[in-house]
Amino acid sequence: MKVYIITIGDEILIGQTLNTNAAFIGNILTQNQFEVPKTSVVGDNEAEILEEFKYAFEKYDVVIVTGGLGPTHDDVTRNCVVKFFNTELVNNNDVLTDIKEIFSRSGRKLTPTNEDQANVPKIAEVIRNSRGTAPGMWIHKNKKYFIVIPGVPYEMTEMMESFVVPKLISIRKDLKSVKIITNLQTTGIPESHLYDRLGNIEELLKGSKLAFLPNQYGVKLRLTVEGLTEDEAHDKVTEIEQTIRGLIGRYIYGKETDTIEEVVAKILSERELKIAVAESCTGGLISHRLTNINGSSNYYERGTVTYSNAAKVELLKVSEDIIAEKGAVSIDVARQMAEGIKAVSGVDIGLAVTGIMGPTGGTAEKPVGLVFVGICDDKICTAKEFRFGNDRLLNKERTSQAALEMLRRHLLGISYDE
Amino acid sequence: MKVYIITIGDEILIGQTLNTNAAFIGNILTQNQFEVPKTSVVGDNEAEILEEFKYAFEKYDVVIVTGGLGPTHDDVTRNCVVKFFNTELVNNNDVLTDIKEIFSRSGRKLTPTNEDQANVPKIAEVIRNSRGTAPGMWIHKNKKYFIVIPGVPYEMTEMMESFVVPKLISIRKDLKSVKIITNLQTTGIPESHLYDRLGNIEELLKGSKLAFLPNQYGVKLRLTVEGLTEDEAHDKVTEIEQTIRGLIGRYIYGKETDTIEEVVAKILSERELKIAVAESCTGGLISHRLTNINGSSNYYERGTVTYSNAAKVELLKVSEDIIAEKGAVSIDVARQMAEGIKAVSGVDIGLAVTGIMGPTGGTAEKPVGLVFVGICDDKICTAKEFRFGNDRLLNKERTSQAALEMLRRHLLGISYDE
Repeated sequence: MKVYIITIGDEILIGQTLNTNAAFIGNILTQNQFEVPKTSVVGDNEAEILEEFKYAFEKYDVVIVTGGLGPTHDDVTRNCVVKFFNTELVNNNDVLTDIKEIFSRSGRKLTPTNEDQANVPKIAEVIRNSRGTAPGMWIHKNKKYFIVIPGVPYEMTEMMESFVVPKLISIRKDLKSVKIITNLQTTGIPESHLYDRLGNIEELLKGSKLAFLPNQYGVKLRLTVEGLTEDEAHDKVTEIEQTIRGLIGRYIYGKETDTIEEVVAKILSERELKIAVAESCTGGLISHRLTNINGSSNYYERGTVTYSNAAKVELLKVSEDIIAEKGAVSIDVARQMAEGIKAVSGVDIGLAVTGIMGPTGGTAEKPVGLVFVGICDDKICTAKEFRFGNDRLLNKERTSQAALEMLRRHLLGISYDE
Repeated sequence: MKVYIITIGDEILIGQTLNTNAAFIGNILTQNQFEVPKTSVVGDNEAEILEEFKYAFEKYDVVIVTGGLGPTHDDVTRNCVVKFFNTELVNNNDVLTDIKEIFSRSGRKLTPTNEDQANVPKIAEVIRNSRGTAPGMWIHKNKKYFIVIPGVPYEMTEMMESFVVPKLISIRKDLKSVKIITNLQTTGIPESHLYDRLGNIEELLKGSKLAFLPNQYGVKLRLTVEGLTEDEAHDKVTEIEQTIRGLIGRYIYGKETDTIEEVVAKILSERELKIAVAESCTGGLISHRLTNINGSSNYYERGTVTYSNAAKVELLKVSEDIIAEKGAVSIDVARQMAEGIKAVSGVDIGLAVTGIMGPTGGTAEKPVGLVFVGICDDKICTAKEFRFGNDRLLNKERTSQAALEMLRRHLLGISYDE
């Protein structure tokens, strides 16, 4: 089943917005064994859109269109659907109810502009939108499928995951071979070192494919395996994954879309441990990541963003003398911060970071990118030095990742000695 | 002059890499008054690429192809060019010299695979590559232009800036008009309400274009104006922007790519004001955003992520009785948190949030999405209620935006009364 993706929006064409929607849709379809041979982007222009609809609907089994469904005059996708399928708009009561509920929840007044979004092309089955006011459309004609979803990313992803992909899976014919894609999430080791540790990669893979995909949090390993049956493919995946884990297991913190905060949150919750975090250079990012998970109050007690020296002394009882002697960015201060936050909050584990994020503020002795992470529990109180780059935001992200990885290793008893 | 952009690469199609190349090319062309009506992405597949070449070269004045020029077996673009233009490869001495120089500079041995990259389709004028081994190609045939450049971003950007764009500018006929794009960033008001407040939009725009681009932080207004001269276009922009500001100015926090944290950071720095932040539900996100800016220690003193009630009482001196009586998520607690963080840290402004981010933890009386933001300075201590949705991460982002907008309005004396 070949799927063609059309993204509508001038902001993508003129490069003001990256096309994350096509990336998300391409990714979720590929993960689910659909083929995406081509995608396109067209502007908010009726003639261009209609021509693109014609081209795509003639040539492909499934067309997914995203964008241009907003309530204002520059959104023309719905009218193009009406023209292209020679249909008309009809008022949909379910959609109107959804829209009214969204507005009543936020206590805002419903305008005629919003109410108009409940008018849907007659030919379309409606895809309800739980996160916004524009409904999606599912059209089945000439044995083909034409699907239209909003361009707002969080509305689009929800509709793809909960409606479009499951429905496409349910209607497709049997597959000839089964492809399985699995991802292993690593952190704390560069791409080239991972590659070297895996040794003879052809022998390891025996025809399967392994992609190394680095980002600011680590390197994702994407393994693609094919088999005649689902069982055969699964067996191959299991075998290769086991070999990989034997070689680099300590660096693998999760699978698929796991984040390191989810992984440590699970361990902390299961063991009924409470944590508190003292941040300087990351400015709250570690606490933000730890509280992104539903139920985080089960394991997260409090955090401080102790940016100034005064805050470090007052809130964490860091020694003024140590700050004067070693500097606020030092292994001693990181250790004292972790010790201090643990003591004042009465938790099981204290985690702390201090560092220089840049782009300015570095010295020859303490350059931009220098970071110390401290961790303390009832038995151990330790700290470790890291060195990152010159980009402030990347440094904050990498530091938060290093701190969460240090927490993971601490919880699982994985040493940093190689 | 209409330009069509083709990006080649499986990694883009399956969503593992964002198409930053098409965004860059679309942006630089639009800035230079070229029109980009459509772009596409195809995989590393000869048949698909050839079909796409045919479609694009028939329909557009200029085609720019990027990607698939690497030295390994999965890069097929050069062979597709040879087939499509029915030409042959010839060895180019300039390119060979470039390649040899790159290798001698890095001290690496030149392999036959690299040397082969000096073979270029006979029909093409070579675009030298100062940053890599794959040359670009400039083909002029049937009064049309077919341009092929590498997909490695820093090689592509260099070729676009130093060769492709200047050359396209030099060959185009005189421009009939000048186009200017400007962006206004709004927050705190939904797209439909903005639209309604702008009144008769056709009269306002007089032929110019206004796009409404919503995201989790607000709605960006993108204004596109054309004029016969640069002065005329600028005058039109100024006039329309003034009218828009007259109608919805209070919601506009910045221009172009401004973020609200940059805007408040600038005001705080200029006025030499210090801020401290007490967060509950946002878990550190507000502090994270405020410290994303270089030099944030000039205005940011400290923050607390006072998640537990104990932390609110101990660190912020929130009254235990008030928590028991009104609940931790209440307008009184928000106000007391702001008051408390200001007092303990001795800053000019205290900012605080408390709320229920979900997806669980809501009640009929206090549903998921309920948020209170408090702000205090030496004169005023106030708090305000907000209602967001059901998605935890979106709620955190929206709450942080609402708090920073409340800070902006407080600093600028903009009231919430409408």
